[in-house]
Amino acid sequence: MREIHVIGIGAGDPDQLTLQAVKALRDTDVFFILDKGEAKADLTRLRRDMLEAHVPDRAYRVVEARDPERDRTAGGTAYSPAVGDWRSARADIYERLIAEELGEDETGAFLVWGDPALYDSTLGILEEVLARGAVSFTYDVVPGISSVSALVARHRTGLNRVARPVQITTGRRLAEGFPEGVDDVVVMLDAHQTFRELAGQDVHIYWGAYIGTPDEILVSGPIDEAAPRIERLRAEARERKGWIMDTYLLRRGPAEG
Amino acid sequence: MREIHVIGIGAGDPDQLTLQAVKALRDTDVFFILDKGEAKADLTRLRRDMLEAHVPDRAYRVVEARDPERDRTAGGTAYSPAVGDWRSARADIYERLIAEELGEDETGAFLVWGDPALYDSTLGILEEVLARGAVSFTYDVVPGISSVSALVARHRTGLNRVARPVQITTGRRLAEGFPEGVDDVVVMLDAHQTFRELAGQDVHIYWGAYIGTPDEILVSGPIDEAAPRIERLRAEARERKGWIMDTYLLRRGPAEG
Repeated sequence: MREIHVIGIGAGDPDQLTLQAVKALRDTDVFFILDKGEAKADLTRLRRDMLEAHVPDRAYRVVEARDPERDRTAGGTAYSPAVGDWRSARADIYERLIAEELGEDETGAFLVWGDPALYDSTLGILEEVLARGAVSFTYDVVPGISSVSALVARHRTGLNRVARPVQITTGRRLAEGFPEGVDDVVVMLDAHQTFRELAGQDVHIYWGAYIGTPDEILVSGPIDEAAPRIERLRAEARERKGWIMDTYLLRRGPAEG
Repeated sequence: MREIHVIGIGAGDPDQLTLQAVKALRDTDVFFILDKGEAKADLTRLRRDMLEAHVPDRAYRVVEARDPERDRTAGGTAYSPAVGDWRSARADIYERLIAEELGEDETGAFLVWGDPALYDSTLGILEEVLARGAVSFTYDVVPGISSVSALVARHRTGLNRVARPVQITTGRRLAEGFPEGVDDVVVMLDAHQTFRELAGQDVHIYWGAYIGTPDEILVSGPIDEAAPRIERLRAEARERKGWIMDTYLLRRGPAEG
């Protein structure tokens, strides 16, 4: 029976790998590395560096494919989507990767940035592949340090305030308004710097990009002071590197433990 | 200058330590271990096991103290609270631990279950100690695998559904009603099995106790089927071990990727 590890590898700092993740890396025959768009080269290299650092005998194979999620124009890879439905397209690719690249008695692994539980599609896709029934396998999940945890650790603050809730949401959702019933909100997948819409409000922002890597940028402060600075640094960094991954925590209302 | 690491050590599985956490353990002269109530002996032993496994030369000291947070009747430890305000009481203890047990050029560490960013008071207390000004130090935070991440990894599900938010809250908050604007809610610190109040609703629960340890218990299912089972298993486990740590994810509405 084929086995698959879905391994959270942390938010960018290779030392955020857990011991459990290292063991799973060493237990793997075939690594599937899927990346998107411009970040591809950098992120693929970071993962290959991890493998070289932690799997010394290098008795593994690496299969790279392009995840179609955000790159509809990509071509030229062995596994690229042929149909319009991107979720099905991803399942097509994963199914073929597993069926064609992983032997019946081998163990494969998907290396996921951050934590596979947060805004990552790997688990959903594997379930879809299983439901189709064309290829069978078992899988387990190795939790990872999410960019959310890494962000607040670098800012030395908590996600929640004492006995209060915290919500994790997307830039698109935040654009519909500050969520109800919470004053602490983490925003991911925000390509449009939606925090700017909170100008004039009593909100503190803790922002970070490329967290845990040598390119890390951190900014925190009241939204009106911090927002213009984040905008400038973000634009510069994006221009310089060609891609950006950033996350932020918004804390509304009077500061308190 | 004194330095302090606040180290997230994962949710119970010693292999959830990150490489960064292991490095921080090895960089530490004095470990402060604070525990509460009945879980104290088990949890203290788990941490001492981690130290023995990962700091082979054992050139460190361990200082144990009782965290007053949930145990007002505790006595007999060198560092116990003298005043009624529990937050100040904790700051008193931490201040004395740092001032009396950590040399001026030494590095201390607090070992925090899960992730120091989630429902943990260590960072807030250290800030309070610094604000008092009686003892000075610098500190950093090593993020850890939270019980939330560990829970959903074991259940092989995500925290959020595609492009949707997730809220992390407490049992007490859930008792006021299912949070607005979200259908995926993680509940921590629930001593009263508040999920029972959702009987009859279209809610799926993913529950776990002692996650990542040999005592781990996992239950998932529609709330009406799962709740009685969780109640029974939880009561049995609590009786057997004398304490319980559990967490759950509630997923409302039609199942979907």
